[in-house]
Amino acid sequence: MPFKVIAFDADDTLFVNETYFLETEEKFCDLMSDYLSHKSISQELFRIEIKNLAIYGYGIKAYILSMIEAAMTISNNTIPIEVVAKIIQYGKELLDKPIVLLDGVEETLEALYGKYKLVVATKGDLLDQRRKLHNSGLGKYFHHIEVMSDKQEQDYLDLIKRLEINPSEFYMIGNSLKSDVLPVLAIGGHAAHVPFHTTWAHEKIDHEVKHQNFSTIEKITDILKKIEH
Amino acid sequence: MPFKVIAFDADDTLFVNETYFLETEEKFCDLMSDYLSHKSISQELFRIEIKNLAIYGYGIKAYILSMIEAAMTISNNTIPIEVVAKIIQYGKELLDKPIVLLDGVEETLEALYGKYKLVVATKGDLLDQRRKLHNSGLGKYFHHIEVMSDKQEQDYLDLIKRLEINPSEFYMIGNSLKSDVLPVLAIGGHAAHVPFHTTWAHEKIDHEVKHQNFSTIEKITDILKKIEH
Repeated sequence: MPFKVIAFDADDTLFVNETYFLETEEKFCDLMSDYLSHKSISQELFRIEIKNLAIYGYGIKAYILSMIEAAMTISNNTIPIEVVAKIIQYGKELLDKPIVLLDGVEETLEALYGKYKLVVATKGDLLDQRRKLHNSGLGKYFHHIEVMSDKQEQDYLDLIKRLEINPSEFYMIGNSLKSDVLPVLAIGGHAAHVPFHTTWAHEKIDHEVKHQNFSTIEKITDILKKIEH
Repeated sequence: MPFKVIAFDADDTLFVNETYFLETEEKFCDLMSDYLSHKSISQELFRIEIKNLAIYGYGIKAYILSMIEAAMTISNNTIPIEVVAKIIQYGKELLDKPIVLLDGVEETLEALYGKYKLVVATKGDLLDQRRKLHNSGLGKYFHHIEVMSDKQEQDYLDLIKRLEINPSEFYMIGNSLKSDVLPVLAIGGHAAHVPFHTTWAHEKIDHEVKHQNFSTIEKITDILKKIEH
């Protein structure tokens, strides 16, 4: 067994996430449709999200605050206060969405459990990610859940140091080439990409990935063909 | 050496925090002073913070969202949108406050470093706490920083399990009896209380603490009289 730790991204790898954000964004665009086209509203929201990333980080609370800010800039500070109340309501609903496991997740974890140290490595709000994992019923499979402030090379190096393993003993599985694959390969780890049908613009990259430690799999159970269990 | 891990709370134990929240609350009360007295505004803000705690958790982003919600309820949805912009601005300023180390912190860490595994155990926003620790220059002393979604007994049990130690080998130092002391004593750990001059209402308790594993110290350097170094 060459690997000691198998790490799973959470959102859109273990359970549905981006779908809920898109639903919320759609409602936000409807709310602001007197001012701009859906497309322009989405672009402005995205611009503000990225601008705020350094100060707010990832997660739903950051998203709510960015929607409020976008509503103000899009309307040139003319939106009624009720719109802000609506945005907060949408945000709270987003925090309260049911957990829908993706196909094959439980079967995969079941097969790997006990043979490897399984961890969740995710970005986002700490409380929100812990709650989702708890509500998913998957908590029992994981040694721990690592909520990372970002997923760059240094963040993975910190994680691996804490896990007291070598990078080559680390296997990461996730839906984002940018966050789950490239930084892991760069530090000498292994990674598998399981695409989700939709990806946040910020997580997209525009080139192909080829690497001896890398594979793309169609569904998460395919990882069982790559890893002894 | 009976202890293996010495854990430090961050806010108001290592560096100034509540002072900044109070400053921000003061500005918020000024902003809303057409509607209610400062005292009533503070009470309403506190009520909303506590109501939102389960869904938002701790930290500045949650605080900003609760201020916005409080502004809406206090004004019965009549505040101009510019007030929301001000609140967001105050929140961003709060996220950007300078780190002011409390007296004796560096001297204490210096004396314990290398003899124990030192960790930070704190609530709040993940990104915000990591940034503060990084900017404090104290990062080098700590094995890692544990941002906890809450500080109840189960949260400490989880931490201790991950640290692979017994509760009796865990020593927690912090300014909150409720969060840093009582749950640690309850699970069999040791704790020292270093009071800060001001405490958030939610962290207050109304009884005295007496326990063989507990001590109150006046300043953080006094811990060096309690622990071999």
